[in-house]
Amino acid sequence: MAQPDKRRRILDAAVKVFAQFGFYNSKVSQVAKEAGVADGTIYLYFKNKEDILVQVFIDSISEILRRQEEALVDVTDPVERLATFARVHFDAVAESRALAEVITVELRQSSKFMRNTNMKPFGRYLGEIAQIVEEGQQQGRFSPNVNPRIAARAFFGAIDELALEWAMGRRQSSLKDACAQTVDLFLSGLVTRPQAN
Amino acid sequence: MAQPDKRRRILDAAVKVFAQFGFYNSKVSQVAKEAGVADGTIYLYFKNKEDILVQVFIDSISEILRRQEEALVDVTDPVERLATFARVHFDAVAESRALAEVITVELRQSSKFMRNTNMKPFGRYLGEIAQIVEEGQQQGRFSPNVNPRIAARAFFGAIDELALEWAMGRRQSSLKDACAQTVDLFLSGLVTRPQAN
Repeated sequence: MAQPDKRRRILDAAVKVFAQFGFYNSKVSQVAKEAGVADGTIYLYFKNKEDILVQVFIDSISEILRRQEEALVDVTDPVERLATFARVHFDAVAESRALAEVITVELRQSSKFMRNTNMKPFGRYLGEIAQIVEEGQQQGRFSPNVNPRIAARAFFGAIDELALEWAMGRRQSSLKDACAQTVDLFLSGLVTRPQAN
Repeated sequence: MAQPDKRRRILDAAVKVFAQFGFYNSKVSQVAKEAGVADGTIYLYFKNKEDILVQVFIDSISEILRRQEEALVDVTDPVERLATFARVHFDAVAESRALAEVITVELRQSSKFMRNTNMKPFGRYLGEIAQIVEEGQQQGRFSPNVNPRIAARAFFGAIDELALEWAMGRRQSSLKDACAQTVDLFLSGLVTRPQAN
């Protein structure tokens, strides 16, 4: 019988193993050992190693999306919505360096893999950002010159890159600071603007 | 005797092979066959498969940096400098989808690999962006509130993500358009600003 907590345990173990050894060098048997289950048990829940990685990603993105929805429920101002969206993303990343590493690094490792994978949750993720931008444009708060899909990609690329840097341990300063600065950059831009409030 | 054009031919062949089969699934012998050289010849130029990937990356980044330097030599306005930097990056990406795929996707595939690799050219690349931001701040054109290193990471993340999307073939619209919009976003920000000129 499949048990949800066993599936969860295998995914958590996979994150640890993939982060430590890299996805391609990891073996399903290592994941099983880390999870404390028999090798065969893995295949009750997952088709293969690739499937485990896909499920790690889908679960994580879905969980972050759930938290973002929750955090955004009472936020109407588009500026605040974008800032909240990024904050929840960075908070989730900060919870686990190993998960951040698996998502920002290991997931990209095969373009083939990315092409064939059901990336719907990722599309939904980008869609959420694009929607915040679009709503801001409709309300006249955001510039109408920006294509919301391109803005969403650029915004995701920026926060993903800063998460990657943090996961790789190259940056010592806090993720919180990086998050705030990135959001500010996207909202206000680099060019100094005259004080006008 | 090592010949520069043979080294180049091997690197070009490697880009094709890695893009088609993925780095981890590719064999050195496939690269040799594609380059029209004997398997053993590869090892006159490269230590192993990882070394080939590193050299592809270092050569590409160095070449893009060279082109950017050339393009920037007479450009003094920081706004123009940032736009030119991005344009040269996207132009280089647009020249070869395979190279874009190898750099944006295959390179990330092992975090171990990234940690141990001499990433100096990449550091120089980020440093160039940070310097443009810093100069803009010194000239009063760019907001002093932004940390140039964070801005550089965010900017690189955004253009890398749009290059990735293009390389993956998900986006049909032009890279040129994506480039212009991303630069505009970083310079002007999302929030509408009062006309003040």
